[in-house]
Amino acid sequence: MDHKDWVISELEDAEKSLGFQYTPQSEIELRMDTLKEGMKNIGVEAVLVIQKMDYYYLSGTTQDGLLFLPAEGKPLLIIRRELERARLESPVQDVVPIKSLHDLPSIINNHWGKLPKSIGFELDMLPVKDYFRYQDLFPNTEFLDFSQLLRKIRAIKSPLEIELMKKAGSIGEITYLIGGEILKEGMTEIQFGGLLEAIAKSYGHEGLIRVRSLNYEAYTWHILSGWSGGVVSQSDSPMGGLGLSPAFPVGASLKPIKANEPILVDFGTCYHGYQADETRMFSIGKMGDKFISAYKACCEIHNMALEEIRPGAECDAIFNNSVQLAKKLGYGDSYLGPRGLQTRFIGHGVGLELNEFPFLAKGHHYPLEEGMTFAVEPKIVFPGEGSVGIENTVAVTKNSYEIITPLKQEILQI
Amino acid sequence: MDHKDWVISELEDAEKSLGFQYTPQSEIELRMDTLKEGMKNIGVEAVLVIQKMDYYYLSGTTQDGLLFLPAEGKPLLIIRRELERARLESPVQDVVPIKSLHDLPSIINNHWGKLPKSIGFELDMLPVKDYFRYQDLFPNTEFLDFSQLLRKIRAIKSPLEIELMKKAGSIGEITYLIGGEILKEGMTEIQFGGLLEAIAKSYGHEGLIRVRSLNYEAYTWHILSGWSGGVVSQSDSPMGGLGLSPAFPVGASLKPIKANEPILVDFGTCYHGYQADETRMFSIGKMGDKFISAYKACCEIHNMALEEIRPGAECDAIFNNSVQLAKKLGYGDSYLGPRGLQTRFIGHGVGLELNEFPFLAKGHHYPLEEGMTFAVEPKIVFPGEGSVGIENTVAVTKNSYEIITPLKQEILQI
Repeated sequence: MDHKDWVISELEDAEKSLGFQYTPQSEIELRMDTLKEGMKNIGVEAVLVIQKMDYYYLSGTTQDGLLFLPAEGKPLLIIRRELERARLESPVQDVVPIKSLHDLPSIINNHWGKLPKSIGFELDMLPVKDYFRYQDLFPNTEFLDFSQLLRKIRAIKSPLEIELMKKAGSIGEITYLIGGEILKEGMTEIQFGGLLEAIAKSYGHEGLIRVRSLNYEAYTWHILSGWSGGVVSQSDSPMGGLGLSPAFPVGASLKPIKANEPILVDFGTCYHGYQADETRMFSIGKMGDKFISAYKACCEIHNMALEEIRPGAECDAIFNNSVQLAKKLGYGDSYLGPRGLQTRFIGHGVGLELNEFPFLAKGHHYPLEEGMTFAVEPKIVFPGEGSVGIENTVAVTKNSYEIITPLKQEILQI
Repeated sequence: MDHKDWVISELEDAEKSLGFQYTPQSEIELRMDTLKEGMKNIGVEAVLVIQKMDYYYLSGTTQDGLLFLPAEGKPLLIIRRELERARLESPVQDVVPIKSLHDLPSIINNHWGKLPKSIGFELDMLPVKDYFRYQDLFPNTEFLDFSQLLRKIRAIKSPLEIELMKKAGSIGEITYLIGGEILKEGMTEIQFGGLLEAIAKSYGHEGLIRVRSLNYEAYTWHILSGWSGGVVSQSDSPMGGLGLSPAFPVGASLKPIKANEPILVDFGTCYHGYQADETRMFSIGKMGDKFISAYKACCEIHNMALEEIRPGAECDAIFNNSVQLAKKLGYGDSYLGPRGLQTRFIGHGVGLELNEFPFLAKGHHYPLEEGMTFAVEPKIVFPGEGSVGIENTVAVTKNSYEIITPLKQEILQI
C-alpha cells in the first residue's frame, strides 16, 4: 500500500481510536486573530512561526515545518515532514510541502503575492545561524522579535486548554496515589521516579516536559529523600537534588529511600502537550517533627497565596507576601532554598511549557488575568537534612482561582 | 548548617558513594588543547562556551554557567548556580561566580587582563536575542562561529568516553532482557515503553536523550507494534510511530500490543551523559514470515555496513552500498522508510548528543576516523503493516570497529 493512501484512509481512524484530539478550527482562528492584532501594534507584516510549541499553538500540529502568518491574508503551513499527517492534524487550510529552505521566498510569494517588508521571528529561541540564513533569503525584509507578544497571548488559556491541563492533573493524581502503594523502603529515588513515570505514561502522560530555553531541561523524576533534598543544583529551584552524574546533576539519584525521611516528589505530567505541575510529600513511617512543622508552614503559605489569586492581583506582591509569612513563621533562612541560594519566585506559568508567563516572582509587577495558569510552590530547605514543600497548578477564574491538580494535600504516609 | 559548608564537607562523599565519576583534569586539558589548536586555525582569540553539552565536554560540570577559554592563557569557569558544586565537579582551577551577565566583560578583564578582539560562539544554537546581548557587552569584538570546529573534535571519542558509552550499552542490554520477561499481550506500547525506561533508570540511565537542535526532541519510548510501525512522523527517521497526541506524535502510543506482530523497540540509554542507541525486534509468539525475512535482510545490511567500518572508509559510500544491497534483496521501496519518504542515512554519530558527527548519509563525503562512535540502523517499513530493523552503536578502532551495545541480535520472541 502506498504510504499516502494509507495515511488518508487509515490514520485518522487510528488516531481517533487512540484518543487523539485535534485543535478545533475556531480555537486556532481565535489565537491567530489575537496575534494579528498584536502584530499590527508592533508593526510586523507577517510572522514565521518556528519554535515548536508556538508552532503547535498556532497550527495544531507538530509535524516538522513552519507557519507563515500574515497580519492581512491567509496563513500558510509549510511542511518538511510529514505532509499528510500535518494536513490531518491542522485546521489550517493551505498546507504545502517544502524540500529546501531555499524555496521559502518563492513559496510565500506564490501564496501571498509578495514578500513581507517586515517579518517577526522568535528571536528569544531562533539560533543565530538560522537567522543569518533567513536574512540571506529575505534581503529586503526587516526582522523583528514577536516572541514576547506571543508568550503574553499564550499566557491566557482558553477553556479547552484548561480542560487539557485538568486531564494532565488527573493523570498526576492517579500517579501519586498508585505511587503511594508501590513505594518501599530501600527503593532508590530513581527507581521510584521511573515507576511513577511508567504509571503516568500508562495513563497518557507524554513524558517530555517542555521548557522554553537553550539549556534548561525539565524532567519528571524530581524525587528527593532526606539529605538529598537539601542539595542545590544548576536549576533555578529551591532544591536541585543529586541526580545521577555531573552530566545530569538534578532530580532523583541512586540514593536508597529510608524510613522516616521527608520524600519530596515534584512530578509534572503532560497531556496533549499541556502540563500540570505538582509537589507532594511522601514518607515511609512518620517523618521528623521538624519537617512536619515546615510542611504545615508551606501549606499555610500556599493557602495564603491562593487566597490572593484573582484578576488584578500583582505577581510581585504575592511573592513578597509569601516571604513575609515565611519569616513570621520562622523560616526566613530556609524558605525557597538554603540561605544565600534562595530563589525569588513562588510560582511560574505552566501550559505547553514549564516557564510561561506569569511569574509570581520578585520584580514581576504585572497583574494576574483571567485564564492564566501557573504553579504555586512554597518550599522549605534544610541543608544536609532534607526539604519539604507543596505545589499545585491553578487557573485564574473571573473572581478567584480553581485548582488544576486535584490530588489531596496531606502527607502521603506509607 | 550553612549550605556552603555542607557542600564542601559532605557532597563530595555523597556523590562518590552514589557512583559519580568526575572528568579527570588530564582529559579536560587534552580536549582544551585540541580546541585551542583549532581556534588558532580559524582566527579566534577566545571562545565563550554556552551550549550545555559543549560546556560539559570542556568543563566537566553542567552547573549553570559559561566557560571562557582563550587560545593563550588560562580558562575561566563563570558560574551562576551552583558555585560550590561546579568547583567540586570541574577540574578547571579558576571558578568565579556571576550575578548578572552585565558583569561578564569585567570578570574576563580581571582574569585575562584584556578583552578578546574576537570571540567564538556556538552560533548553530545560540539564540539571536542572546547574541545581541553579547554584542552590547563586547562592542569592539568580532563574533565568529566555532560550533563546527568543536563538533568535529567531539566526534572523536577518548577511551574514557567510549567506556562510559559501553556502560550505557550494558544498561541497554539488561533493560531489553528484562523487557522480554515483562512484555505481555494487551500491554499498550507506552506501558511497555514506560516500564523499559523504569528498568533502565534503576540501573543508572539518566532519562534525557539530548539532541543538538532547536526543535528536534529525542526520547526513549520508541516502541512501535504492528501497523503503528508503518507510520511516519515529524522526525527524520524511517518510522515515527503514532505517539500520544498531535503535540507528541512520535514513539509509543496507547495501541495495545498484539501477538504475532513485529514489535520494534528503539531505545537509547544514557550514562554520565553518554548515550548508546540500539534497536531490537520483539514478538509475542512468532511474527509473520514477511517481517522475519525483512529482519534478516536488515541484519545482512547491518553486517555488511559493519564490515566496511575502518578509518578511512567514506560515510557516503557505506550508505550507498547499503541502499544497493537493500535493492538487491528486494527492499528498494521499503528500505529506510515508505516509498517517497525514505530517509537518507544508515547511521548517525552518538555521544553526549544523538546527532553528532559522523553521519553515514547521502552526501557526507568525509572518512571515518579512529574513535568515532555512531549508530548503524538499517530498517524496513511496510505502511499499514509494520516495520523491522536492527541498530547497534559502534566505535571505530585502529583497523576495524567494536560494538558498544552487547545485546544479542536475535528476535526477542516471547
